Amino acid sequence: MFDKIALIGLGLIGSSLCHVIRREGRAGKITGHARSAETRATALKIGLVDEIFEDAAAAVDGADLVILCVPVGAIGTVAEAISGNLKAGAIVTDVGSVKETVVRDISPHLPDGVHLVPGHPIAGTEHSGPESGFSELFENRWCILTPLPDGDEATTQKLEAFWIACGSNVERMEVAHHDLVLAITSHVPHLIAYNIVMTAKHLEDVTDSEVIKFSAAGFRDFTRIAASDPTMWRDVFLNNKHAVLEILGRFSEDLAALQRAVRWGDGDMLFDLFARSRAVRRGIVEAGQDTDAPDFGRRS
Amino acid sequence: MFDKIALIGLGLIGSSLCHVIRREGRAGKITGHARSAETRATALKIGLVDEIFEDAAAAVDGADLVILCVPVGAIGTVAEAISGNLKAGAIVTDVGSVKETVVRDISPHLPDGVHLVPGHPIAGTEHSGPESGFSELFENRWCILTPLPDGDEATTQKLEAFWIACGSNVERMEVAHHDLVLAITSHVPHLIAYNIVMTAKHLEDVTDSEVIKFSAAGFRDFTRIAASDPTMWRDVFLNNKHAVLEILGRFSEDLAALQRAVRWGDGDMLFDLFARSRAVRRGIVEAGQDTDAPDFGRRS
Repeated sequence: MFDKIALIGLGLIGSSLCHVIRREGRAGKITGHARSAETRATALKIGLVDEIFEDAAAAVDGADLVILCVPVGAIGTVAEAISGNLKAGAIVTDVGSVKETVVRDISPHLPDGVHLVPGHPIAGTEHSGPESGFSELFENRWCILTPLPDGDEATTQKLEAFWIACGSNVERMEVAHHDLVLAITSHVPHLIAYNIVMTAKHLEDVTDSEVIKFSAAGFRDFTRIAASDPTMWRDVFLNNKHAVLEILGRFSEDLAALQRAVRWGDGDMLFDLFARSRAVRRGIVEAGQDTDAPDFGRRS
Repeated sequence: MFDKIALIGLGLIGSSLCHVIRREGRAGKITGHARSAETRATALKIGLVDEIFEDAAAAVDGADLVILCVPVGAIGTVAEAISGNLKAGAIVTDVGSVKETVVRDISPHLPDGVHLVPGHPIAGTEHSGPESGFSELFENRWCILTPLPDGDEATTQKLEAFWIACGSNVERMEVAHHDLVLAITSHVPHLIAYNIVMTAKHLEDVTDSEVIKFSAAGFRDFTRIAASDPTMWRDVFLNNKHAVLEILGRFSEDLAALQRAVRWGDGDMLFDLFARSRAVRRGIVEAGQDTDAPDFGRRS
């Protein structure tokens, strides 16, 4: 489908893309770039790409599709580095969890005739690095594309077809709306998860070992997402400040009301709220976005 | 090991106990009580117990081991109801998520010669009811016993052996310490999970359907525990107010600091905190309290 796909960044998303592109035969050739020599060596060793480059510009040379899979804080630098080597008519996309600053940071560097279609596959695990990828990562997950108002429709459709081939469902969204939707479905949940892990670590009267032993009571569900890549997440919060602060403000307001209900023993309010949140869970299971297996099918 | 075990309450924990007691042959006979006629009918139909009673007192008649598996808010009423029928030398235990108020509510009703050993198996799923139980629920999970200062050591050891036969590891703890440890490992995580689900539901600019579709980005990890039994959880918060408010206060303080770091763009603080919480996750996986499989082994 593409003669040559260039992957800039070979972490969890980049390496998973390599696997699925091969499995589905979507590229004549896959080239890659990674900043670290160790990642480049691993990528060659496990056969992620056909050719690996220390220089990002060399990797995109002649590519029809360039996918930027670096933390969003690095995306401007990368766009600048490759700009001189982009082929006329090439599609440039990304996989960043934030879209407004990504568009702001990439756009100025793209020559005329190169199409920018920002993207965000809603998929991940808590693992990172070139060996963490697997071809099923995008299966039945959503990929959001945020085509720009002056974008070319045929190009967007070509990228849509690519993500569908990777196993994803595709949804289009405006850039600013994407950032708000992700603030509630992803960014604030991660921040809260990081936060409670830290609150637990700092308790004087409960040891780390007790927290770990008894984590199956609920705490462990938070720790998976609090184990995600720190660089990626630092960049998300630095680049989606406005929406994250808006959602966090609402979260804290709601929590204060709940705390008051606990303090004053308002059992009816607590019961009502707990009963209503069950319905949201049912919706997620019915939509195939989670499994209903007890314990997530965790094995002990 | 026991001639007769009585299970008062046949929800997730009670029904799982029935399954594992049978599998391990730990009782000559199992009797049960459930408040609802529907649960009693189901319990007989699926063979959870040998005999089922509408009257809790009748269920404990002649039992060597009585396990109270009702929400902690109902435990005083149940203890009062069975008190006249408890056999001399019987062990009474419970599975409640709170221990201080449970001891307060049970103790006054127990006749001399009956041994109270409060307990709490740290195991659960988001499902409830008599059909949600399974015999592996306690496998490799911890069960905390909080024997009272004047308790009989031989009795505590007998109950320890019972839980070990059910697949659990057993830890002893003081009542007040239990309630603090569970506030951080279980109660506050549940409250926060319920809270963010409600924050998401109340957003004007993000639809419920968007929250559900894109929940794989992190949000869904919270919804599993926010789907837990509302009655059980209302009672937990009404009965562990002090410890929950203490931990919530610390959580909110920590979150305010994190919010400030987002607002002021303090990337170093964010990175450092995110990197440190990875270590806690590693501890949980190494302790066998969660699986390291990508996506928890979720199947799409």
